[in-house]
Amino acid sequence: MKKPIKILIINPNSDKAMTAAIEKTAKNYANELFQVVCMQTQGAPLFIETYADQMMAAPGMVKILKENEKDYDAFIVACHCDPNLDLLKESTNKPVIGIGEASMKIASMLGHSFSVVSSDKHSIPNKEAIIRKYHLQDTCASVRAPESKGLIKPKDLYLEASKLAIDEDMSEVIVLGCAGMSGLDKELEEVLNVPVLDGVVCALILAEGFARHGITTSKARRYNPNY
Amino acid sequence: MKKPIKILIINPNSDKAMTAAIEKTAKNYANELFQVVCMQTQGAPLFIETYADQMMAAPGMVKILKENEKDYDAFIVACHCDPNLDLLKESTNKPVIGIGEASMKIASMLGHSFSVVSSDKHSIPNKEAIIRKYHLQDTCASVRAPESKGLIKPKDLYLEASKLAIDEDMSEVIVLGCAGMSGLDKELEEVLNVPVLDGVVCALILAEGFARHGITTSKARRYNPNY
Amino acid sequence: MKKPIKILIINPNSDKAMTAAIEKTAKNYANELFQVVCMQTQGAPLFIETYADQMMAAPGMVKILKENEKDYDAFIVACHCDPNLDLLKESTNKPVIGIGEASMKIASMLGHSFSVVSSDKHSIPNKEAIIRKYHLQDTCASVRAPESKGLIKPKDLYLEASKLAIDEDMSEVIVLGCAGMSGLDKELEEVLNVPVLDGVVCALILAEGFARHGITTSKARRYNPNY
Amino acid sequence: MKKPIKILIINPNSDKAMTAAIEKTAKNYANELFQVVCMQTQGAPLFIETYADQMMAAPGMVKILKENEKDYDAFIVACHCDPNLDLLKESTNKPVIGIGEASMKIASMLGHSFSVVSSDKHSIPNKEAIIRKYHLQDTCASVRAPESKGLIKPKDLYLEASKLAIDEDMSEVIVLGCAGMSGLDKELEEVLNVPVLDGVVCALILAEGFARHGITTSKARRYNPNY
Amino acid sequence: MKKPIKILIINPNSDKAMTAAIEKTAKNYANELFQVVCMQTQGAPLFIETYADQMMAAPGMVKILKENEKDYDAFIVACHCDPNLDLLKESTNKPVIGIGEASMKIASMLGHSFSVVSSDKHSIPNKEAIIRKYHLQDTCASVRAPESKGLIKPKDLYLEASKLAIDEDMSEVIVLGCAGMSGLDKELEEVLNVPVLDGVVCALILAEGFARHGITTSKARRYNPNY
Amino acid sequence: MKKPIKILIINPNSDKAMTAAIEKTAKNYANELFQVVCMQTQGAPLFIETYADQMMAAPGMVKILKENEKDYDAFIVACHCDPNLDLLKESTNKPVIGIGEASMKIASMLGHSFSVVSSDKHSIPNKEAIIRKYHLQDTCASVRAPESKGLIKPKDLYLEASKLAIDEDMSEVIVLGCAGMSGLDKELEEVLNVPVLDGVVCALILAEGFARHGITTSKARRYNPNY
Repeated sequence: MKKPIKILIINPNSDKAMTAAIEKTAKNYANELFQVVCMQTQGAPLFIETYADQMMAAPGMVKILKENEKDYDAFIVACHCDPNLDLLKESTNKPVIGIGEASMKIASMLGHSFSVVSSDKHSIPNKEAIIRKYHLQDTCASVRAPESKGLIKPKDLYLEASKLAIDEDMSEVIVLGCAGMSGLDKELEEVLNVPVLDGVVCALILAEGFARHGITTSKARRYNPNY
Repeated sequence: MKKPIKILIINPNSDKAMTAAIEKTAKNYANELFQVVCMQTQGAPLFIETYADQMMAAPGMVKILKENEKDYDAFIVACHCDPNLDLLKESTNKPVIGIGEASMKIASMLGHSFSVVSSDKHSIPNKEAIIRKYHLQDTCASVRAPESKGLIKPKDLYLEASKLAIDEDMSEVIVLGCAGMSGLDKELEEVLNVPVLDGVVCALILAEGFARHGITTSKARRYNPNY
Repeated sequence: MKKPIKILIINPNSDKAMTAAIEKTAKNYANELFQVVCMQTQGAPLFIETYADQMMAAPGMVKILKENEKDYDAFIVACHCDPNLDLLKESTNKPVIGIGEASMKIASMLGHSFSVVSSDKHSIPNKEAIIRKYHLQDTCASVRAPESKGLIKPKDLYLEASKLAIDEDMSEVIVLGCAGMSGLDKELEEVLNVPVLDGVVCALILAEGFARHGITTSKARRYNPNY
Repeated sequence: MKKPIKILIINPNSDKAMTAAIEKTAKNYANELFQVVCMQTQGAPLFIETYADQMMAAPGMVKILKENEKDYDAFIVACHCDPNLDLLKESTNKPVIGIGEASMKIASMLGHSFSVVSSDKHSIPNKEAIIRKYHLQDTCASVRAPESKGLIKPKDLYLEASKLAIDEDMSEVIVLGCAGMSGLDKELEEVLNVPVLDGVVCALILAEGFARHGITTSKARRYNPNY
Repeated sequence: MKKPIKILIINPNSDKAMTAAIEKTAKNYANELFQVVCMQTQGAPLFIETYADQMMAAPGMVKILKENEKDYDAFIVACHCDPNLDLLKESTNKPVIGIGEASMKIASMLGHSFSVVSSDKHSIPNKEAIIRKYHLQDTCASVRAPESKGLIKPKDLYLEASKLAIDEDMSEVIVLGCAGMSGLDKELEEVLNVPVLDGVVCALILAEGFARHGITTSKARRYNPNY
Repeated sequence: MKKPIKILIINPNSDKAMTAAIEKTAKNYANELFQVVCMQTQGAPLFIETYADQMMAAPGMVKILKENEKDYDAFIVACHCDPNLDLLKESTNKPVIGIGEASMKIASMLGHSFSVVSSDKHSIPNKEAIIRKYHLQDTCASVRAPESKGLIKPKDLYLEASKLAIDEDMSEVIVLGCAGMSGLDKELEEVLNVPVLDGVVCALILAEGFARHGITTSKARRYNPNY
């Protein structure tokens, strides 16, 4: 009998609560059809916002990958800005999937255009930079962050931003732009009436399939450290 | 207990042998974790090459979809030029995935760039048109068709074209550009040493995941027939 | 003495009133210098909005083309979303012109950028898809649909949308985005003070010229059904 | 009775033989259905190759335009690099058409992609610059210039370059890249079996139609000298 | 001992006051480390707005260049729309730099995106055309012109437009879009808190460096008048 | 009297010989008009090829920057793939310039298109990725690496690759694609007869100018660590 597929989710920050939340979303999706674990990154900050944060997370992320390379079939980077994703794709022969790349490329298959709802207006340029890196700039309607301030609940902030994306930017699909929003997809979908994508789920869909069929990163050139 | 996921693959042409071959690939991948069936299209020609072929396939494809809509959780269009895919996305609230779109978007996640290996040089413009439609023109290294003629075996022809794509066009991932090539991926991969993608498998990965998590086409505008 | 040029306009829908209106615009432009007839499509719906509408129109459009191929020198598809245009270009050696393609490519020659004024906000994604298909996305300032509702006259709705396109989107040319608006061009032009293009006229300009000089679709590859 | 349409073709260089050749092509096309005259430009060099040549031609071109503005209904700039076309569009309220812009935009309607056959390899960068200016870079397969040297006839040189464009660059339409090639279109077409476009004819098709229906350059902003 | 570097700034218009202002900015930057002179253009209008203005400036600009070619090490065109820049690059083997090109390419190095603040809304299309010519359209957030009218001081108008660019268009760098704004950069920077670029300074930085290291325009093809 | 400008060049690898060579090029250019020092990076590998190499260099590069921030006016990253450039731009309020970005953006000002000559074919995808990041993909003719193997001298290898770029890819400017090639520019230029750019010199031109005029990275959003 075939061994069950095992997927390791690397949370690039060191926030245990967020790690637990991501793992909960993942186990819900896995539904015991495959195994999934989420680990936070030692030495990383509590939140990944800056290029310095990404640098601080890098060694810990590689360490998790290397220590668990033999025991898992696929790896996921669970921060929507996909920090150090190229580095991890280069560092193993097993598949590595970023929740940003997975969710946005899947979004492009579900409607005319998609929008990313981010937690903060200041992260928009960084989002735009990775959207362009993934060649998605012409199918992305907008990156939106909540405008309102104050006592409004996060869910309501994201709803507000999503509605503007759908009505004003003509977006047809919403992508949750932060791993911290994981688990909100169905709740928002019910109100918005368009697909709302949780990057953790999107990455798991691909990771399970890649692991099952032996699909992985090309070592032709760009992600081959030994050429 | 949850009902098993059921996926219906629509072969847009009327070739029973190809239908059987696609279903074989699909069942191998499914490995009894979900159910999958492939049906050919009544009224369609034996091979889809021209715009007229696509038109002739359209009513039969919609008919299969409508007749089986309740019984299946997701639908796949199994011709690499994704004939009538927009029409089918519009025609149901359940997810519909084209093997062309699925394989090429997944290819873009596995290496710096990908090439499509097509069966015939004359189909290159049509391939380029859908590559552009999917916003993939900047990450697609080339569409290649075999140059050699005569008694060479198809597998060798595709190997020849793939090697040129990898060496001359700097491609890092090969996409099999015809449902008729289904099942050749691992054999070619062994020789080429880069990922080779079978569109049927790629579409199944997404279809299973979409069905499991309730992800489907946006009905905001473009794919909504009733606005 | 040379035979007069004969142009056949195919109205992809089955609306006789619209057919008559298009023919009137066409005969006014032709001014007896060439012959022009407009026919509606049997089996097509009264209005072409969805992919299903396009599919239903396809066989009837091909039938008109084939039955009249010998008697006419050029063919026009008179719906601004150019339904089944690739199919018709493939189906004959004589020139076939879509009013969408003709009007938008001519618009790009008359000013810095152009806007399409559509009848309905929900058709904007489909318009954007064909604008991209024709490589016009960087020279198209916007696709606008009327915002106002209620008892306002169509002409006033289009004026309102056009003014916003000119002032806010910096558009310099207006393209009427529906064959049903045919004949309104000069009336709007007078108010707007920028060129307003009627797709039927634009297509006739090209069709007459192509017919006169023997210019027609390339049968090199993409539009050749017999390669 | 309506007055016949009168079109003035401005040859930006001062070569009388080329002026006569262009006028011959034009009168053949016009076939007495409209009037057409070609004038060479005083003060211009015998051939337009450099930016300095374009500068030297500018005042003479404006002079011809202004002196004949009242007597003609449309103007054509008959050099394939469209020298001073923006200037002339700005300088009159009547339509002005460049043979480069007209031929390449019409080419984009006749096949998957087109190639420009130029007289000299060194002009390729300038051609590429205007192709980009007209937003045609993604639909242009290549700009080719003859490789062979020596005693071969011009026609054979263009055939050689065109064949390479069709076979190697997958081009489906050939655009003659110099007004000096005017008249060769049908001869080449017979051998190449794809559409070959003569810019003078393409510009006349549009000029006649624009004149007949009162279509002209937008004076909204870019081409308005008096805002 | 090495001779000091000498840079000649060509003001394409004939306004002596603007010439003096540009020279003042230039001498401030040069700080006697190199020599710099600014000359206005004989035969040019007082302000360069239209294509006709550019044509009228061309012969005088070439004349200044030719008469001073031996005595200067580098040349600058000091109008932000870079009139006749290709012509001047072609006309000498010494480096020629446009303040538009220099300032916008430097801007792209200092932030995620930049905006150009222009003096007048009607010049926006022309700005957009050169931004596209320089391949900067994807990194330019916007071209803005003041909305307010009346008695407000120019500086305040530019501040207003700049603030909108930063807040609404997400711009991170402001480029002064007119040589007439020269000298305002530091004053605006203090209020706006983002880099504000004066094209004259940007061009001088490059001109001095090019002159010092012998870097100049390629005479491979595009800018070689004698091929 | 003003203090002299001081520029610090950070060599991201730990190769002392290369550090010395870069400093030599830099001091030659500076010619005592400003002060310039080059330091290698502690903890970095001897050569930067992979994403892992870039990660290993990051902490050392930040350390050099922080320790010397007060004493220098501008910083240069002297590896042509610009490793950790975003991180360094974020880490200081003083200007930071990558030799890759500087050389390629300057190259785009000197000719119709440029090519990068790299040391190794396997680095081409990484070069293409940063070219795209800098929005230069449409003005870059090619990235070329030497084809020949064996005992040929490096200089001859680069000449060979450069000639192919100029002749076959229609490139007009050559960019040296590795800091290790520093100092070869003028030698190659003599043979190739087109501009050959040394990234160290290009970065110094900008660094000196930025330092002199107080131009630096925008802290609006993308490069601001404290928003």
